[in-house]
Amino acid sequence: MDRVDRPYVGIPSFLRTPICADLSDLDADVAILGVPFDEGSPFLPGSRMGPRALREHSLRFSPRGVYDPETGNEYLAAELTGGLIADVGDVDIRPTNTEATFENITASVRAILERGAMPVVLGGDHSITYPIFRAFDRPVHVIQFDAHCDYGSFEHGLRYTNGHAFRHVAAMETALSLTQVGIRSLRNSKDQIDEIRADGNRVIPMGQFRSLGPSGIAELLPPGSPVYVSIDVDALDMSLVPGCVSAEPDGMSYPELRDSLRAIAERHEIIGFDFVEVNPPLDVGTGVTAYLGALVVIEFLGHICNQP
Amino acid sequence: MDRVDRPYVGIPSFLRTPICADLSDLDADVAILGVPFDEGSPFLPGSRMGPRALREHSLRFSPRGVYDPETGNEYLAAELTGGLIADVGDVDIRPTNTEATFENITASVRAILERGAMPVVLGGDHSITYPIFRAFDRPVHVIQFDAHCDYGSFEHGLRYTNGHAFRHVAAMETALSLTQVGIRSLRNSKDQIDEIRADGNRVIPMGQFRSLGPSGIAELLPPGSPVYVSIDVDALDMSLVPGCVSAEPDGMSYPELRDSLRAIAERHEIIGFDFVEVNPPLDVGTGVTAYLGALVVIEFLGHICNQP
Amino acid sequence: MDRVDRPYVGIPSFLRTPICADLSDLDADVAILGVPFDEGSPFLPGSRMGPRALREHSLRFSPRGVYDPETGNEYLAAELTGGLIADVGDVDIRPTNTEATFENITASVRAILERGAMPVVLGGDHSITYPIFRAFDRPVHVIQFDAHCDYGSFEHGLRYTNGHAFRHVAAMETALSLTQVGIRSLRNSKDQIDEIRADGNRVIPMGQFRSLGPSGIAELLPPGSPVYVSIDVDALDMSLVPGCVSAEPDGMSYPELRDSLRAIAERHEIIGFDFVEVNPPLDVGTGVTAYLGALVVIEFLGHICNQP
Amino acid sequence: MDRVDRPYVGIPSFLRTPICADLSDLDADVAILGVPFDEGSPFLPGSRMGPRALREHSLRFSPRGVYDPETGNEYLAAELTGGLIADVGDVDIRPTNTEATFENITASVRAILERGAMPVVLGGDHSITYPIFRAFDRPVHVIQFDAHCDYGSFEHGLRYTNGHAFRHVAAMETALSLTQVGIRSLRNSKDQIDEIRADGNRVIPMGQFRSLGPSGIAELLPPGSPVYVSIDVDALDMSLVPGCVSAEPDGMSYPELRDSLRAIAERHEIIGFDFVEVNPPLDVGTGVTAYLGALVVIEFLGHICNQP
Amino acid sequence: MDRVDRPYVGIPSFLRTPICADLSDLDADVAILGVPFDEGSPFLPGSRMGPRALREHSLRFSPRGVYDPETGNEYLAAELTGGLIADVGDVDIRPTNTEATFENITASVRAILERGAMPVVLGGDHSITYPIFRAFDRPVHVIQFDAHCDYGSFEHGLRYTNGHAFRHVAAMETALSLTQVGIRSLRNSKDQIDEIRADGNRVIPMGQFRSLGPSGIAELLPPGSPVYVSIDVDALDMSLVPGCVSAEPDGMSYPELRDSLRAIAERHEIIGFDFVEVNPPLDVGTGVTAYLGALVVIEFLGHICNQP
Amino acid sequence: MDRVDRPYVGIPSFLRTPICADLSDLDADVAILGVPFDEGSPFLPGSRMGPRALREHSLRFSPRGVYDPETGNEYLAAELTGGLIADVGDVDIRPTNTEATFENITASVRAILERGAMPVVLGGDHSITYPIFRAFDRPVHVIQFDAHCDYGSFEHGLRYTNGHAFRHVAAMETALSLTQVGIRSLRNSKDQIDEIRADGNRVIPMGQFRSLGPSGIAELLPPGSPVYVSIDVDALDMSLVPGCVSAEPDGMSYPELRDSLRAIAERHEIIGFDFVEVNPPLDVGTGVTAYLGALVVIEFLGHICNQP
Repeated sequence: MDRVDRPYVGIPSFLRTPICADLSDLDADVAILGVPFDEGSPFLPGSRMGPRALREHSLRFSPRGVYDPETGNEYLAAELTGGLIADVGDVDIRPTNTEATFENITASVRAILERGAMPVVLGGDHSITYPIFRAFDRPVHVIQFDAHCDYGSFEHGLRYTNGHAFRHVAAMETALSLTQVGIRSLRNSKDQIDEIRADGNRVIPMGQFRSLGPSGIAELLPPGSPVYVSIDVDALDMSLVPGCVSAEPDGMSYPELRDSLRAIAERHEIIGFDFVEVNPPLDVGTGVTAYLGALVVIEFLGHICNQP
Repeated sequence: MDRVDRPYVGIPSFLRTPICADLSDLDADVAILGVPFDEGSPFLPGSRMGPRALREHSLRFSPRGVYDPETGNEYLAAELTGGLIADVGDVDIRPTNTEATFENITASVRAILERGAMPVVLGGDHSITYPIFRAFDRPVHVIQFDAHCDYGSFEHGLRYTNGHAFRHVAAMETALSLTQVGIRSLRNSKDQIDEIRADGNRVIPMGQFRSLGPSGIAELLPPGSPVYVSIDVDALDMSLVPGCVSAEPDGMSYPELRDSLRAIAERHEIIGFDFVEVNPPLDVGTGVTAYLGALVVIEFLGHICNQP
Repeated sequence: MDRVDRPYVGIPSFLRTPICADLSDLDADVAILGVPFDEGSPFLPGSRMGPRALREHSLRFSPRGVYDPETGNEYLAAELTGGLIADVGDVDIRPTNTEATFENITASVRAILERGAMPVVLGGDHSITYPIFRAFDRPVHVIQFDAHCDYGSFEHGLRYTNGHAFRHVAAMETALSLTQVGIRSLRNSKDQIDEIRADGNRVIPMGQFRSLGPSGIAELLPPGSPVYVSIDVDALDMSLVPGCVSAEPDGMSYPELRDSLRAIAERHEIIGFDFVEVNPPLDVGTGVTAYLGALVVIEFLGHICNQP
Repeated sequence: MDRVDRPYVGIPSFLRTPICADLSDLDADVAILGVPFDEGSPFLPGSRMGPRALREHSLRFSPRGVYDPETGNEYLAAELTGGLIADVGDVDIRPTNTEATFENITASVRAILERGAMPVVLGGDHSITYPIFRAFDRPVHVIQFDAHCDYGSFEHGLRYTNGHAFRHVAAMETALSLTQVGIRSLRNSKDQIDEIRADGNRVIPMGQFRSLGPSGIAELLPPGSPVYVSIDVDALDMSLVPGCVSAEPDGMSYPELRDSLRAIAERHEIIGFDFVEVNPPLDVGTGVTAYLGALVVIEFLGHICNQP
Repeated sequence: MDRVDRPYVGIPSFLRTPICADLSDLDADVAILGVPFDEGSPFLPGSRMGPRALREHSLRFSPRGVYDPETGNEYLAAELTGGLIADVGDVDIRPTNTEATFENITASVRAILERGAMPVVLGGDHSITYPIFRAFDRPVHVIQFDAHCDYGSFEHGLRYTNGHAFRHVAAMETALSLTQVGIRSLRNSKDQIDEIRADGNRVIPMGQFRSLGPSGIAELLPPGSPVYVSIDVDALDMSLVPGCVSAEPDGMSYPELRDSLRAIAERHEIIGFDFVEVNPPLDVGTGVTAYLGALVVIEFLGHICNQP
Repeated sequence: MDRVDRPYVGIPSFLRTPICADLSDLDADVAILGVPFDEGSPFLPGSRMGPRALREHSLRFSPRGVYDPETGNEYLAAELTGGLIADVGDVDIRPTNTEATFENITASVRAILERGAMPVVLGGDHSITYPIFRAFDRPVHVIQFDAHCDYGSFEHGLRYTNGHAFRHVAAMETALSLTQVGIRSLRNSKDQIDEIRADGNRVIPMGQFRSLGPSGIAELLPPGSPVYVSIDVDALDMSLVPGCVSAEPDGMSYPELRDSLRAIAERHEIIGFDFVEVNPPLDVGTGVTAYLGALVVIEFLGHICNQP
């Protein structure tokens, strides 16, 4: 179509991909799914607006593929022009009824999987990884990029906040392993960290992350492993994510995160991923955090799709 | 103490009243209770910060009582200097576990009532009126100032949002009547309005409100009735509440709301009230909506306390 | 579909109406068209984000029709459930090439008219009324609700800003008359006002508007006249539109505007309308101005569709 | 000059009047003077940015005079095109040394008076009226439009905040009378109000203001009286001034304030005025409060200059 | 107590420590004192809201101690659970009377010292270090982390702004030495820098800071020296402190500041410290700068308390 | 003059230099020219307010010259105290008529050049470099610091947006070469990059920029070359420019940009430069991006003026 379609023009689907309103009609390799849920947030809410903002900022990229002038790599051209990526809209949220919402999340992801597509899930807060992950029925490894462990104990009647997701995930039979990368917040208790490790998971603080480097992270798993990746935007350094409530200093640079994701994509089989915790109503007016989020998703998806 | 205590100075309790950390120690006639809960909000969250903002703006009023230059009335001087009002802090919130949060709300209000104090509850979103109200065990009338009915049907697994509270309230045996004043939003369905009336409640749109006038509203109930009052800040006109997500045009002026509350206070026995739906993170930088909220609470409380 | 679809869920089309990506496929009675253009703004830009914000806030209304508890009227139920309203997306904008953008606007409106639908156009700034109006090829009356005349002379190389639109409109043969309602800004020059009147148009300041009343405004034209209506949100009082850069005091209350629109709808034949000048990036965080804008559009459309 | 000079273009002097950097060179009938001082503010500071914002928004009006389409009156054309109004910049502020700042304010106003010009002073907070007023050496009446009395007692070492200005003013021999119009805040103590009246001043709450009407206010003084006018933007209703920290509900509409100022200008001799308490950093992004402030200043100045 | 106490719940004292309203009752090893003073700020005010924001964000940390997953260190557990830290509220501020405010600051710090506690002071702007420091009566070294020297000459009647504090401090007999670390702004004059050095103080620009490293900084003083530390948040890089008006590029990373503070704590005897210049009303909506400030204070306090 | 002139005081010209309202009177070595144009912006507009914000933040620097405590260098003292720098205000903008605006830009720059002064141009968006550059009539090299190529093809009727400027520039005979430094966005197409290089220009991504280093960049041109420099603030890393809509991660640190500019100034003859793309209405409340922009301009200008 002979349109310029500047980013502020048009009803925003992710990268202007076709909207698939009914998952039973899905015919694509990749399905973009929004989960506008933030009831699990421990401080300021607002990440429920994340999927809309990520879609909106994704329109700043070409709907015909992207190109990295540094590396000369091209991404997503075939997938986008070939209609292999679809935007399946948002999971239906049931406020104050978290279990019902979580069932909807699981059902949506399952429907995507049943149609043979890879789910790319846009949050929302980090509580959603649990209901996403339980939709997978094959054993996979889980790699979590995050400043916080999100492995809270089930007490005080709390099980489903964004501080609990990975206790659920790690306990599932389908989780072959859990590797937490970028952990650095002083708001995780020692007990929690000890328990994660005692439960057989890896906690990789920033120092160890920097020693290992991107390929070192990828090499923690046997080559060709099936991997689910969960990316909390606060893995990135606080200076890059003014619109993330849980931002922490001494985090990853963008190249550190990007290259780690690339190394994982190149060495393993990615079966799905989520990206969470951008809070658009509290972001800077320019929306830089949402833009950076869209970039992370697009570039990681590009590396995944570029694998042979 | 010889302090100036400008509003930006000091740890904010409501009107600088003494903080009572343990409800079993409460010794006051009035207890200010915060309920920082916004998981029931249908669009943008943030009213969880309401109790803090209302406390902060309350410090702009004198902790030794207020005075109306128009009427010459004085309020709260004896209560404040005599220590008859206490700030009991906030109900403990259990995110994603609404039922547990609601139990905490009910328990806190009950504890206040058991100590013989009148609860003044600061929200939070309007879903909290249900767990507040069920703490009362005597039959009372309920008057709700609101642009919306909040009488949603229980479907899709939803029962506890801020759109459902008054279906619960009206159905309780302790609710002698429910009168909804200021209803005007086009977002209430006809079915809902019809059902409210069919269930024996009063719905008073703005036109009828203006015809009745403040005293007419008060006279809807037999003199001396015990009354619980629930005030959604969106009863006020949209122009006055930029920091309320659910603001609607053609609402009450401040004098209309104030005089209605005064008339009710003068004619009836107020057993408690709540004030809800100020959203501080999304308010104007000056915080005018939170200030107006503090004013509503203070002036209504003043009228209640001024009754013989 | 058994979805709750809270307003923050889903890819936003206006009132969740079906998206029609290709105007040649349009099959509806009403077409919602966005024009995200703000290059004609004389001070702070940003109204280009208006269509997105109006769509987003429209989701706060029921996609199955709305109901006014004051009047008991219902609106848009048949139209929405019957699929008679479509969202045709946004006109393609060509930044720095205003003439090309204007051609696109005219072509889009013309395509809507050719499909037999009534265009409802969401701005954007007020410069867009000229290219919208020139798409109509039958003679009609024009009623403009506005604080400003937008009848600037063509000098200094300027012809297409939001201060010039109605000089173009009034000069077209298809404009049977131009009636400007709500004019009050001190930023219009005497020369401009004099010229408007000398050119045979009506300028109705607020005092005269209040004397005439809603029906008086409608009665300025012969009954059953074909009418195009252009609504600048700044017709409303400054207190209601914090997110409008050109807000002016002493403007219309919401009922004054609503009832005028209703009277016009009831007495005349509306052939299309536009709604302009909401500036979402500069609005209050709650988005009250965008919400009010969606309400104006929905309620006016409801009155139009309710005519026999 | 053949320039369009849109409001966002150019270095902003008030109404694009000539900048007079050295008061000893002043040759004008009216001098616009900024006083960017907010150290006297009791809650949130920021009104120090008032003069800049008022200048910036003044550029939205024509530098060749303004016109009221309602009344047909023209204002300031001769004064602006004839160079009779000059912008003399800002008083030099000495932070933390209020007495030195106040001396500078007084000296600047005195210099304006010595050059035979009428000072129009843009605040800043309301504490500045005291040092402004003491620059006048002839006896005049003072009329203050304000929601608050600003007549605080000198205690706790406080004498110079925006809550003290009018105790100073009223006590000066040059103050023939003090009339406070619009008083309504519940944050003034009864003692303060009583003391103001006992000291021989007038306090006119909103009810009395509405009874008197604009001409009634003007008629409180003998015709032809010399009058200094001090305008706190919070005299206007809270709904109009989101960018004023001290906004109060139930205030004046814009026509009420405008017509009162006009009546005073028509009946008396205005020797100077100030306009204070707009807080630009905390205003809505559109700057509506600063715009309204510029409008008040321009329209009042227009009425003053239109007197024979 | 069996509470979850999410960060948005409850009246905020620093780290939920007990509030001590009367300093004569203080019984703790560490006293947190707020000084909400910003009248000394040279550009945009607002840091007066710093103490409230720092307290609020401190609630995001566990009130039972914190843990660093990188180092395995635990902090403050004994102090917090043992009640050894108290929040003594804010110094009473006297706006426009800086000397009176400064006397109050000095008196409050002195009272803390008299009760045997170490003061941890939360600003406010940097002018407060002078009145804080003069409360100490024993000779100590002073280390200042800052982008600016704050050593302005006393001229134009200015002595007490945030640009003057360290001229006062360095001149006091109790100041054994003054070491300024992180100096880099181009807004310090050469004369000022030369004078600081001529007066026997150390100025350490960023290059030298990086050469020395954290331990090098600590080793500038004899081991075991008594040290007062003053931390301006603008010592950190501009990218980390969007809510600091005086932010400068090329500043410290968080690890650089943290490790320097740790090295000083480990090698010397800290007798008190202050943390200043966070401006919450102008910060990003997420409050990242206030959070980072709370982290600096908590982690430094943790290192101090962990010393044998 | 014995004024303190804090940054918030006074009508802002750049660095408080004399305002030259008529270019035919210009008598200075350097002319600061604002171009408040943002109609070429592809996403969110607002950079039209850039010149005002840069002027305002420039007032935070001394109007008597600046000093770098790291290097001991002084800048601009002679130029500022000697009146060698003038602020010539803003180019007159013709909204919706880009060609007329561009003619004005070219005419203003030409007038500056004719008076023998070096133009320093403050944007606005990056589209302005084309009309600036065409005002020069001698052959020079062009160095562009930018994350994006801005070398869009002329299609869809677009030629003048901020994505097209350097296609125009590179094609002019006066452009001896074009060197683009810092290119890294994934939003540039491969075709565009290939075409730039095929046209004989240099594209230097961040990796190559870091390899070359500041002096390596300068050494790309023969020593003593005449050079025009165009600086897009998004050359800096995203973490430093929250108020830039087009911010990208993995950009330059401040020292990297500063030292590159310095090396170019020291090795070549700078004939003019522009600085663009700060968006003040969408920046953080503290205005850090505008401050950083002012710093870039001042420090680069200082290095230019310090050359023998």
